[in-house]
Amino acid sequence: MEKTIITISREFGSGGRTIGRMIADKLGIPFYDKELVDQIAVESGFAPKYVEEHGEHSPSGSLFAYAFTPQGVPGVMNGLSTADFLWNIQCRVILQLAEKGPCVIVGRNADYILKDHPEALHVFVFADIPYRAERIVRRYGESEKAPEQRLAEKDKRRRVNYQHYTGRTWGQAQNYDICLDTGVLGIEQCADIVVGIVEKSREGK
Amino acid sequence: MEKTIITISREFGSGGRTIGRMIADKLGIPFYDKELVDQIAVESGFAPKYVEEHGEHSPSGSLFAYAFTPQGVPGVMNGLSTADFLWNIQCRVILQLAEKGPCVIVGRNADYILKDHPEALHVFVFADIPYRAERIVRRYGESEKAPEQRLAEKDKRRRVNYQHYTGRTWGQAQNYDICLDTGVLGIEQCADIVVGIVEKSREGK
Repeated sequence: MEKTIITISREFGSGGRTIGRMIADKLGIPFYDKELVDQIAVESGFAPKYVEEHGEHSPSGSLFAYAFTPQGVPGVMNGLSTADFLWNIQCRVILQLAEKGPCVIVGRNADYILKDHPEALHVFVFADIPYRAERIVRRYGESEKAPEQRLAEKDKRRRVNYQHYTGRTWGQAQNYDICLDTGVLGIEQCADIVVGIVEKSREGK
Repeated sequence: MEKTIITISREFGSGGRTIGRMIADKLGIPFYDKELVDQIAVESGFAPKYVEEHGEHSPSGSLFAYAFTPQGVPGVMNGLSTADFLWNIQCRVILQLAEKGPCVIVGRNADYILKDHPEALHVFVFADIPYRAERIVRRYGESEKAPEQRLAEKDKRRRVNYQHYTGRTWGQAQNYDICLDTGVLGIEQCADIVVGIVEKSREGK
């Protein structure tokens, strides 16, 4: 079966976004990361920054979230918590993007949302703490918190969000088609491996 | 860092042994599966069949195991349960094999035993139940039990054994350098991907 939709799930700082963009460029297909956030923002009425920060994080704010309504779309949340409302839109947008044609989608539990899509290839990338700590400081700069603490917090939020909405365990190999340690294999090689799989799937279609 | 020692951990029926042999053949290095069992048998005094059946299974028999002593080596178990005794020998044999030079080692928690070996590449292979069920019937024949039940039992035993001796979660992507779904990617392609990684690691050594 030809693989045309590539989902990239990733530990924070492991290079998932970079790999996603490389794969999209090499295959000449659209890359959805920031674009995905923007589209969810448009459909939900939330600010892109809000979607970016909450779309993959734990739904712990749900109890309070009923108090908020997205600007300009009063009443559309139908009694859902903000987190659940955002999740529903996210599912819809991701399914629509996959419908549009070949693409690379980074994050937002797209592996689960598209788990039954026959043309989807699900990739998980990760790396050990020292590699990711060095990388986030280099890419995103220093902050008040130690990089290890930033990683631990972000990892936990993604893990809880994933578990909550999918019922699956974050990082369990069987949820994906291929899992790659970017620290050991290098970002470029990881992208090449995925591109190779996609190209090979085209031969056998 | 050049990768010279390849460990293959695998779900029962996913083709780990076949992939391991393909990789060893393509790289021209020794392949340890049956040979590993035989060596553990020699060092432990247990029959190869006993080692094969118990070396990766849950240590549930431990309480009773004190009653048994391997033939010809009375007293060598030093008060360890059979399972712990076997585990110690397994660790020693695997460390010795890695010391001898490049090789492919299938199963027996070698990923954990060699987790700090800088030249080791740790691979996990898996596949969904229908793929593995079809495969075990084709390879090992029918039995009284349904193939799904045989898979569930074997998976559970390996999972419990791994958890017991390593403290880690079986199938968690972060325990390995690369995880591959043989049902989706095909056994030959999985072997080629691993061989490609090893060959690339040689360039940069």
